[in-house]
Amino acid sequence: MKKTVLREYARLIVRSGVNVQKGQEVIVYADLDQPEFVAMVVDEAYKAKAKKVTVEWDYQPLEKLHSRYQSVSTMGKVEDWVAARQEHYCQVLPCRIHLISEDPDGLKGVRTDKIAKARQMRYPILKPYLERRENREQWCIAAVPGVAWAKKLFPELSRNQAVEKLWEAILYTSRVDADPVKAWEEHNARLKARCDYLNSLRIASLHYRADNGTDLTVGMMPEGRFCGGGEKSLQGIFFNPNIPTEECFVSPKRGLAEGIVYATKPLSYQGQLIENFYIRFEKGRAVEAVAEKGQEALTTMISMDEGAAYLGECALVPEDSPIAQSGILFYNTLFDENAACHLALGNGYADTIDNFENRTLEECRALGLNDSMIHVDFMIGCKTMDIDAITEDGKTVPIFRKGTWAF
Amino acid sequence: MKKTVLREYARLIVRSGVNVQKGQEVIVYADLDQPEFVAMVVDEAYKAKAKKVTVEWDYQPLEKLHSRYQSVSTMGKVEDWVAARQEHYCQVLPCRIHLISEDPDGLKGVRTDKIAKARQMRYPILKPYLERRENREQWCIAAVPGVAWAKKLFPELSRNQAVEKLWEAILYTSRVDADPVKAWEEHNARLKARCDYLNSLRIASLHYRADNGTDLTVGMMPEGRFCGGGEKSLQGIFFNPNIPTEECFVSPKRGLAEGIVYATKPLSYQGQLIENFYIRFEKGRAVEAVAEKGQEALTTMISMDEGAAYLGECALVPEDSPIAQSGILFYNTLFDENAACHLALGNGYADTIDNFENRTLEECRALGLNDSMIHVDFMIGCKTMDIDAITEDGKTVPIFRKGTWAF
Repeated sequence: MKKTVLREYARLIVRSGVNVQKGQEVIVYADLDQPEFVAMVVDEAYKAKAKKVTVEWDYQPLEKLHSRYQSVSTMGKVEDWVAARQEHYCQVLPCRIHLISEDPDGLKGVRTDKIAKARQMRYPILKPYLERRENREQWCIAAVPGVAWAKKLFPELSRNQAVEKLWEAILYTSRVDADPVKAWEEHNARLKARCDYLNSLRIASLHYRADNGTDLTVGMMPEGRFCGGGEKSLQGIFFNPNIPTEECFVSPKRGLAEGIVYATKPLSYQGQLIENFYIRFEKGRAVEAVAEKGQEALTTMISMDEGAAYLGECALVPEDSPIAQSGILFYNTLFDENAACHLALGNGYADTIDNFENRTLEECRALGLNDSMIHVDFMIGCKTMDIDAITEDGKTVPIFRKGTWAF
Repeated sequence: MKKTVLREYARLIVRSGVNVQKGQEVIVYADLDQPEFVAMVVDEAYKAKAKKVTVEWDYQPLEKLHSRYQSVSTMGKVEDWVAARQEHYCQVLPCRIHLISEDPDGLKGVRTDKIAKARQMRYPILKPYLERRENREQWCIAAVPGVAWAKKLFPELSRNQAVEKLWEAILYTSRVDADPVKAWEEHNARLKARCDYLNSLRIASLHYRADNGTDLTVGMMPEGRFCGGGEKSLQGIFFNPNIPTEECFVSPKRGLAEGIVYATKPLSYQGQLIENFYIRFEKGRAVEAVAEKGQEALTTMISMDEGAAYLGECALVPEDSPIAQSGILFYNTLFDENAACHLALGNGYADTIDNFENRTLEECRALGLNDSMIHVDFMIGCKTMDIDAITEDGKTVPIFRKGTWAF
């Protein structure tokens, strides 16, 4: 890929993505796949006057070794210095840039039970820090190609060709064209207009139906509101947490979900693929979850904690989004979630609650926002999906017809 | 390079290098050049029953960006969580494996003055932690090829060929053959025999001469002793800090160095090459240091602190060592220092003082051990080098003739 185009993309991530402010710290999380691009992002962050940029490198094969050899108690321990680093993050509120490139099934065969237990041990220690930063930090998830990921998508191509083709797909769906920053402003305006309309309806519940058997009703909080595209941190800084993004999303009310829903795309959860699965909900809770492949990972996922079996997000994405139109199944949530309607199990987003700036997290949860250590999107959209809104005053308003917007 | 051979090398580093003990933590410092080999080292460390292995990745281009854009005060600050991590290291005494592969002039053009000032700011905070761990940790420096480094050595070869050739050179000089662990035991026995002889002489000073103009006399501490090859930590664990190593070394007495010495190989100091230089000593202090190339880096180096202008090490290496015989100029101290006699400016090694186990660091320094934040080797050996020992009882004993051992 041409360096000038990559430079535009790096700038987009820094300026429109996290929107680095003068004097801020920035942390970049990256795999080893694209070090030269990572250096471009770091350079752009400094040019945006970041005080300090730190890169935290990751390497999937090491994750496998750690989970094979370490004891659960070692994996689950939060050392004092790690807690001290969390405290530092709470003080300085760094921008966080996640450059994802991992192999969708790169952790196949790991001991998911150990990883899950260790996460359950660490979470109570880390949770207070995470909550103190919630909605106060700017963050952005964007993608770069890894060889294994690219070969998964384009197995017929050589390594270099596959990586190049994945670059093209990432840049196209991320709107990296002549003036990406402007393209994102326009895109955000369109998403906002959709959300404004949805919020004007005062939706009490959404009813999903499709010919694959999906028939699910999900209840909303009266205080809930649809959001999409960029958002504002509690510090008042506008940022775009996902590049790309095509969704209008809301956090539903915990306890109000009835029916069955069929996944329409494979889900890569912590390096394990879960394929062809359905989930049945009763009183908001996932009471049945059955997968053709990856059953163990699915079961582990919804058992992570009490809230892991409840919904945290309903996102509306038309079947004709640029990502859907690319025709590529990315095996990566950042992309696949933006090619189809999806739900998320686990934690809800407090910033989808009206006037969240003046509510505590506890108040938001008392309104029905779900609380969990996980937040995992899974795709349910398809070309036959119809969605109706049942409004607070009892009307039925078509939202989606045949997989795309009905308005 | 064949995976089975690399596996042998990884095992050598883990078993003979740091000698990982059951339940120990291990930290691997590595550049991004050879991630698959790094994973092998991690795997071998776990197989040696390490409790936890952490890899700290480095990437030279980021170092350049940090030093260009960060302020000195940002670069020089030691955050609380970094100090907490140092405290953790003091508690658990992890094994440290340094896998070096950096481009010898990869930091060309950086602001050395900023880097030096920042290091001077950090050192007083970090020094107490470093001193608490001194001689208590097992550590090992070993090399893996980086593309830029390989191309510097073999510019006529393709990238892949150059890397392969550098692998060959590293593995040959590191004695990775049929049974490398056994080869290292034999090698250590030979080095120990040389040191025993040198120590039996009761050397008061060494007199270096060569036809390039070198004429230098360096005084020793009566308590000093020559060491070589593997050593024992204060916890009683035998380890090999350098792979490869060919030297018998001692820390001289601060204040006793008179004369002039000419470097015989380029020195890569913090990513900058210093070439064709000499240093003149008076009363132990470098009073004149002149380089054809890299003068600024040289001046900065010997001005880092008071002790940076005094000697911390005298190492004897014959001109017919396997590394010298390879005929390769590595532009890397780990190798070049083991192909020629060298001196080091800066910190002395307390473990070259007799009975150091029962002396404090302060006591060692009172005996004449130099104290500095730097320890930089520079090569002075050549085919015409003669070295005489003047013993405590006034005799002159030939140690080197024409660049190699005289006994």
